[in-house]
Amino acid sequence: MIEDKDTQRTSLEKLGEFGLIDHLTQNFPISHTSTIKGVGDDAAVLSIDNSTVITTDLLIEGVHFDLSYMPLKHLGYKAVMVNLSDVYAMNAIAKQITVSIAVSNRFPLEALEELYEGIAMACKLYTVDLVGGDTTSSKTGMLISVTAIGEVKDKEITYRSGAKPNDLLVVSGDLGGAYMGLQVLEREKEVFKVNPESQPDLEPYSYIMERQLKPEARKDIVELLKNLNVSPTAMIDISDGLSSEILHLCKNGNVGCNLYEDKIPLDPTVISACEEFNIDSTMVALSGGEDYELLFTVPQTDFKKIRGNPNLSIIGHMTDAAEGAYLITRGNTKIPLTAQGWNSFETGS
Amino acid sequence: MIEDKDTQRTSLEKLGEFGLIDHLTQNFPISHTSTIKGVGDDAAVLSIDNSTVITTDLLIEGVHFDLSYMPLKHLGYKAVMVNLSDVYAMNAIAKQITVSIAVSNRFPLEALEELYEGIAMACKLYTVDLVGGDTTSSKTGMLISVTAIGEVKDKEITYRSGAKPNDLLVVSGDLGGAYMGLQVLEREKEVFKVNPESQPDLEPYSYIMERQLKPEARKDIVELLKNLNVSPTAMIDISDGLSSEILHLCKNGNVGCNLYEDKIPLDPTVISACEEFNIDSTMVALSGGEDYELLFTVPQTDFKKIRGNPNLSIIGHMTDAAEGAYLITRGNTKIPLTAQGWNSFETGS
Repeated sequence: MIEDKDTQRTSLEKLGEFGLIDHLTQNFPISHTSTIKGVGDDAAVLSIDNSTVITTDLLIEGVHFDLSYMPLKHLGYKAVMVNLSDVYAMNAIAKQITVSIAVSNRFPLEALEELYEGIAMACKLYTVDLVGGDTTSSKTGMLISVTAIGEVKDKEITYRSGAKPNDLLVVSGDLGGAYMGLQVLEREKEVFKVNPESQPDLEPYSYIMERQLKPEARKDIVELLKNLNVSPTAMIDISDGLSSEILHLCKNGNVGCNLYEDKIPLDPTVISACEEFNIDSTMVALSGGEDYELLFTVPQTDFKKIRGNPNLSIIGHMTDAAEGAYLITRGNTKIPLTAQGWNSFETGS
Repeated sequence: MIEDKDTQRTSLEKLGEFGLIDHLTQNFPISHTSTIKGVGDDAAVLSIDNSTVITTDLLIEGVHFDLSYMPLKHLGYKAVMVNLSDVYAMNAIAKQITVSIAVSNRFPLEALEELYEGIAMACKLYTVDLVGGDTTSSKTGMLISVTAIGEVKDKEITYRSGAKPNDLLVVSGDLGGAYMGLQVLEREKEVFKVNPESQPDLEPYSYIMERQLKPEARKDIVELLKNLNVSPTAMIDISDGLSSEILHLCKNGNVGCNLYEDKIPLDPTVISACEEFNIDSTMVALSGGEDYELLFTVPQTDFKKIRGNPNLSIIGHMTDAAEGAYLITRGNTKIPLTAQGWNSFETGS
């Protein structure tokens, strides 16, 4: 047999399932009094005074992430963020998560430790308790299933369905970065295949790469809205792209929407990357996805509270359902929004 | 291209992710007032008055199930049972579940409908609301990740850790059936490979095959204990085998245990299958796993309440931790319990 030169590889079989869970979760402190019992029994026990929100997402190797450029620590962090983002989109505060992972034997213990380091960092920064999960082997690749639990006062729950005609449409942060970061990473992967010695200067792309590899869920926006005394009428997080999320708000609230192209917030590095890749930046914002920003509606009366806030952009307003959902371009053309961005995309132009 | 002769195959791409979730979850009614919002927003919203318990389990094709003999409907049912069993093991009543699935394109819509039929049947029989989940593609095979949420009064929560010396050790139902059912199914799979025309008479194995393919979580036992006015001091469900679960109770409660071989409940079909396969039936009960029975401890004072109940078997009693955990054989030999059954198994005798 060929000797394994990497002394830092501990095989998972050595630990067994229970040893593995104990080992991986040993450095997770409990922060919330609502966590009565975390890891270590048949189920976790929580004591939540207000309403509970619960959401779950699966991340699968080869579908949602590519380990050739996704560091495991970032993957762990992102898996948590994706779920916390859904909790914040209910105007709730995330309190607990469970994390289940399946891995093939090609991953040594040290790889899982790195993954859990990212999970631990996310838990610490967002004050979330890891309370359970499952660890198992897989025949191929890695998958992560996270469930997040949050708490919210009954009156503050914000559904996708509450938007009213004339409400302002507001988005946090900027859009399209995660998608363009992915384009850069995919390109570098191809370059690396051809020339493993290449030393590309990725510094100009650091913002958009970070948007893809290490997104942040917008807990701060939920807190900001509370501080501004703004109660969103409807809210959703942007996982699939602005266009698709707007259509959810329209369908669930039975309203229409006018979205203004010139109001869509874009970071300068997104614009320059779009130019470099010859992609329309509006299209990227509308369809790119994975930005994990919050999209919400507020009554017109809240305009003064939001105007000029550097974290928030008013990008449109809701209309009667009969009027439909449209993008108003810079050239003042009205184009129907579709889940794929806009209609012209579908007809292949 | 070769035409698909099976007209009942609808490809998943046709529906898209949102259409698929809507389609699969349309026949799931909501039974509990604690379910404020189920499928259809960023997160489900629950309003739980008492303590919440939460547990999650992953089932992976090729690791936890084999679709060559596991009908998809049964798989859906079992995936729910595995999780409900953990909720009942906390002495709680399951109220909600989320179900995430990943499937490769080899599965048509009709396969997922069958899977969800089993999930729906489990939800109906156990009065559980499906409140969320995730549906995604996988590069290979199928996986199911279920999270179950239950409710329990604070005083009634039963941890693994509460057993005291002299407590009676009690198990519901009978043991070893699921493991022997698996042996039969694996054998028939091999027979089928050699001779696809064979028509085996599986009727004698129907009980143990059902224990493997369609296990039931013991909600009835939680209700029975309440009716008998018995408060277990510790409880765990039997997923890995009696021996491993007893050791959990011992470790978590800092107690020892004497388990009596002649008290272990075995169905006659398990005994006869063990004879046929030349396997020791005690070993099967100790190490087989997947029986999803409840194992719990009660004070000696509850002896009269439990004695003679056809659903319950008193199989031993707890001791001081220093005395260790032992199997007392029919021949009155004392053998240390190990997670794999007993020690002589490990030494290969």
